[in-house]
Amino acid sequence: MINIAILGLGRIGKIHVANIASDPKCNIECIYDIDNSISLEISKKYGCKVSLSAEEAISNPNVDAVCICSATPTHTKYILLAAKAGKAIFCEKPIDLSMERVNDCRKELQKYNVPIQIGFNKRFDPSHLSAKEKKDNGEIGKLEQILITSRDPSGPSAEYLKVSGGMFKDQTIHDFDFACFILGNDSIDEIFATGDNLFSTEAKEAKDIDTAMIIIKSKSGVFCHINNSRHSSYGYDQRVEFFGSKGMLISENLTPTSVRKYGDDYTDSKDPILDFFIERYEIAYKNELEVFVDCIINKKPTPVNFEDGRNALIIADAAYDSLNTGKSVKIKFD
Amino acid sequence: MINIAILGLGRIGKIHVANIASDPKCNIECIYDIDNSISLEISKKYGCKVSLSAEEAISNPNVDAVCICSATPTHTKYILLAAKAGKAIFCEKPIDLSMERVNDCRKELQKYNVPIQIGFNKRFDPSHLSAKEKKDNGEIGKLEQILITSRDPSGPSAEYLKVSGGMFKDQTIHDFDFACFILGNDSIDEIFATGDNLFSTEAKEAKDIDTAMIIIKSKSGVFCHINNSRHSSYGYDQRVEFFGSKGMLISENLTPTSVRKYGDDYTDSKDPILDFFIERYEIAYKNELEVFVDCIINKKPTPVNFEDGRNALIIADAAYDSLNTGKSVKIKFD
Amino acid sequence: MINIAILGLGRIGKIHVANIASDPKCNIECIYDIDNSISLEISKKYGCKVSLSAEEAISNPNVDAVCICSATPTHTKYILLAAKAGKAIFCEKPIDLSMERVNDCRKELQKYNVPIQIGFNKRFDPSHLSAKEKKDNGEIGKLEQILITSRDPSGPSAEYLKVSGGMFKDQTIHDFDFACFILGNDSIDEIFATGDNLFSTEAKEAKDIDTAMIIIKSKSGVFCHINNSRHSSYGYDQRVEFFGSKGMLISENLTPTSVRKYGDDYTDSKDPILDFFIERYEIAYKNELEVFVDCIINKKPTPVNFEDGRNALIIADAAYDSLNTGKSVKIKFD
Amino acid sequence: MINIAILGLGRIGKIHVANIASDPKCNIECIYDIDNSISLEISKKYGCKVSLSAEEAISNPNVDAVCICSATPTHTKYILLAAKAGKAIFCEKPIDLSMERVNDCRKELQKYNVPIQIGFNKRFDPSHLSAKEKKDNGEIGKLEQILITSRDPSGPSAEYLKVSGGMFKDQTIHDFDFACFILGNDSIDEIFATGDNLFSTEAKEAKDIDTAMIIIKSKSGVFCHINNSRHSSYGYDQRVEFFGSKGMLISENLTPTSVRKYGDDYTDSKDPILDFFIERYEIAYKNELEVFVDCIINKKPTPVNFEDGRNALIIADAAYDSLNTGKSVKIKFD
Repeated sequence: MINIAILGLGRIGKIHVANIASDPKCNIECIYDIDNSISLEISKKYGCKVSLSAEEAISNPNVDAVCICSATPTHTKYILLAAKAGKAIFCEKPIDLSMERVNDCRKELQKYNVPIQIGFNKRFDPSHLSAKEKKDNGEIGKLEQILITSRDPSGPSAEYLKVSGGMFKDQTIHDFDFACFILGNDSIDEIFATGDNLFSTEAKEAKDIDTAMIIIKSKSGVFCHINNSRHSSYGYDQRVEFFGSKGMLISENLTPTSVRKYGDDYTDSKDPILDFFIERYEIAYKNELEVFVDCIINKKPTPVNFEDGRNALIIADAAYDSLNTGKSVKIKFD
Repeated sequence: MINIAILGLGRIGKIHVANIASDPKCNIECIYDIDNSISLEISKKYGCKVSLSAEEAISNPNVDAVCICSATPTHTKYILLAAKAGKAIFCEKPIDLSMERVNDCRKELQKYNVPIQIGFNKRFDPSHLSAKEKKDNGEIGKLEQILITSRDPSGPSAEYLKVSGGMFKDQTIHDFDFACFILGNDSIDEIFATGDNLFSTEAKEAKDIDTAMIIIKSKSGVFCHINNSRHSSYGYDQRVEFFGSKGMLISENLTPTSVRKYGDDYTDSKDPILDFFIERYEIAYKNELEVFVDCIINKKPTPVNFEDGRNALIIADAAYDSLNTGKSVKIKFD
Repeated sequence: MINIAILGLGRIGKIHVANIASDPKCNIECIYDIDNSISLEISKKYGCKVSLSAEEAISNPNVDAVCICSATPTHTKYILLAAKAGKAIFCEKPIDLSMERVNDCRKELQKYNVPIQIGFNKRFDPSHLSAKEKKDNGEIGKLEQILITSRDPSGPSAEYLKVSGGMFKDQTIHDFDFACFILGNDSIDEIFATGDNLFSTEAKEAKDIDTAMIIIKSKSGVFCHINNSRHSSYGYDQRVEFFGSKGMLISENLTPTSVRKYGDDYTDSKDPILDFFIERYEIAYKNELEVFVDCIINKKPTPVNFEDGRNALIIADAAYDSLNTGKSVKIKFD
Repeated sequence: MINIAILGLGRIGKIHVANIASDPKCNIECIYDIDNSISLEISKKYGCKVSLSAEEAISNPNVDAVCICSATPTHTKYILLAAKAGKAIFCEKPIDLSMERVNDCRKELQKYNVPIQIGFNKRFDPSHLSAKEKKDNGEIGKLEQILITSRDPSGPSAEYLKVSGGMFKDQTIHDFDFACFILGNDSIDEIFATGDNLFSTEAKEAKDIDTAMIIIKSKSGVFCHINNSRHSSYGYDQRVEFFGSKGMLISENLTPTSVRKYGDDYTDSKDPILDFFIERYEIAYKNELEVFVDCIINKKPTPVNFEDGRNALIIADAAYDSLNTGKSVKIKFD
């Protein structure tokens, strides 16, 4: 039984709390949030201890692993505290918005030998994963093109956007990581990114874009297109297409039921697609936790580690470089 | 080049006129309708001769084949006139509403050796046909169940219904023939038919049903379900399902385009399905004509002959018998 | 917290054990199986008490509710024991194969006032349920036709078939209940049922059919078609179609992922559909338990009670009557 | 009746011959091909005159319009000959591979006032067109993103590739024109194009790419992604996606029938998609001819004129510029 301390009890933190509670292999040891009233509320529901500081939670000797879901600027600090305390670490993406701080944390982390997993949930979606496995099994021959569509149903608040690091580090980062997952980190060679503020006044206020299109080229000769939007009237659009020499695989959107409606105006209609990440990636969140716990128990390397989190940020930085210069930018992962 | 006389220029007659005009292997020799003004109008468009009587059209020495699209009560008369004149015959379904007249015609016809084809268009639909071919090729193993859905977008007028012979002889007859096409005539053993007047005031006035469900059993051990309605808000519902020991084939409805729409309320929507038979079975009508002309030219037996037309009527009569008695009724094709 | 005793730990019993274990509102108080080694194994996994007899389990004063998953012939006995002990009852279908025993049980039950729910899981499937709700909301106008397709991936053993009560009481009974769910019990008027042994040697040995087609008529003027098979190469085929005056709703099959494959031979392919009931109706099983527990806690009437279980058997008996006579049979629920 | 001279009787020429023959509003006046035996063969089939030179065909006083389907280097010469002779012109794409020759032709053409239409068939596909119309009708709000997938089933010969002008002027040019069709020429602002030779030895020999990904930005704030491949195992992949502020429209691939197959390994499978342009764009070819003839008869401007043909080439040249420099390139249409 892995005892876990959860730091940060916002939207994502609450998902992890519920998943840890229902997973027979792990347990909520204690929880911490800067707003203690939220901790108390959750403590009441799940019967877990409330820590009054992140430090207290991390240093709790019963704690085997720390799940970091707090605000991004606190990530590297908590990662290092947990590493020093010898705890396994699950940290939400992104590691940090500043590559400098990420690199400092990386250097420091090398002193400790603790498992660390970054919360790229998209890798654990059963449909995306099944498509990858079919590709890996050679069902479509040699991979040549990837198309990733990621459109959020609606954008975040102006406040959130101002501290989000921008679309590429907040939203697209999942797609950057997914491209790495498919292509292998070392294989990503070059990126061209473009985008604009087409509709969102919140994004405009935060000097952020709300629409993006990207092309990534891999050393192994695969082209990857990503398109993003901060709104989507029909739900959380999450599709992936793999095109290979012998076929194509598409991981389609999901709807809550299999019902099809036929009426006067439209036929064969489905309901709106699952919306938002909590619903769409419900199983992915469970799966990433199970894998994390399994890696701790069986002393296996985590499938999405600190380097993966850093690599996604390197790509995001290159994407901003491309957006600003109008040029294709080489990626260096060193 | 096969020269064809067309008798009757209603909705179906006009489809055949257009198809004959555009088929390079046949030619409209002359046309006849009880309303001469319609003949004149069509003559103007297609540059063909107008006959002032069916007899005149049939006896025209240039005519190789007669296409009978006139009112049902005239069918057997024109069939026999054409047979006597040695012309090939294409006759719309049903041959006649009275089995007695059909049998008289059948007896008389035996004296002549002319090709005759009945207008069961459904057999010639590319999707239904492709499903049949896949089944015949063993792609689903041994056939065990058939499901036929046939729902008209809207019912005919009370006037038409009164002379239509009732739902089973007017609408379901296509499905009876299609079941024969799949199962082989001799194989059909027994029928249970039920139905009711659920909504149509026109059908009520004509003492007809507007909704039906039927189960046919074949000697070879196949069960066939048919469901019918005289209305369908989403278009002309024409589906066929073949279930076999090794798989299933479904011939789905057709939409005018491949466009899918995603909106606030519904996603992945198609447009309403093709509506009505003129659109849905457009290619089927062309194909049945091509096959008919090819049979004449190459002296091949027609694929849907007088016996097929009569057999469908035998099944329809048995269906009425079952509807009236609440019992499963044995079919005798002799 | 509702404490539940589970009787019978076969395939279905194990589903309920797992669902009760993970439901925060109920608890496994004790378990019983005629094979004590199975009880011990499950006790080890879930940390629950083992009862050495059904009587012991039922009479346990901590037990609030009994979940009867044992062999069908034991159902009525355990129902009455539980009723006498004042426990809430969840009983798997069918109540019993003999209408006489069902009626005796019914009479005796009237003395006790305990909640009882029958395990018709199909009612609780999110897709079927969503289709029903849309229908109830008037989205397709007045209901006119229902089509239910239920094909098991593969049939049971000859041993099971011999005690199963036959296809109509074992497999179709779910569809009979589902028809009642949609139409309302009182509304079912008449049934025509046919079937045959087309392929299964096990069914033949047990003198059972393996293929069936059925038409039910309701007093309110709805026609319902059911088709069944004891095998299906492509998985557990569970579809429902509602046809109404203003549209149609189809609850389609489910696949494990949303992946579509495009290859040389076929395009837009899904994986095989979810197979078997444990996978397809996984959420339905959870939902029926939640509803049962909620009914106990909030003293609400259960949505599928003893009368519903008995009604499905009455329809099954009428179906056999129709199968044997070739006639449509009137249903009497009194 | 518009009398048409057809120059060049290759694959595309033959499509136009057949369409002109079956269109009641136009007529094949004469045909010319450098290989006279092909002319004789087609003359035999359609009963039309054979011209011994393009000049002879163009100068034929009965000829109202010239349909130029000959090799690309002959296009501008024939366009000018036809223009001088006062004939309406239908010219296959591309106008020419050299912008200099296109510009010379354009200058010369300004002296004559003849209708000219370029053969961009994709604009006339019923599904793509329907999606555009829905978008134009505001069904998805303000357009924000376009995704165009164009993958040929298999690439041309090395010989053809050497004179094709390269992928962007041969294959992608249809997508460039389609983007112009949707966005309006003036609206296209910038292009980033990348590509590689991933698999085709013929393309390699011709120093051509076989895979491409492109992003176009419009002045009005729309992003357009194009992906291309010279092979596709599952058929001719032709999809278009319009994403707007209020919804999304996808024009999906077409299959020859509506049959869905369910088997052991895959379910809900369609046949391979329509392959190749002759089948997929069969109706588009008919529609573009009808529109051309209608423009001549009713003295309307053609919907895809010389400027459109030139604009697509300007975009292709910019695409090559981007491919070579790795930079986003501004488009200038003047």
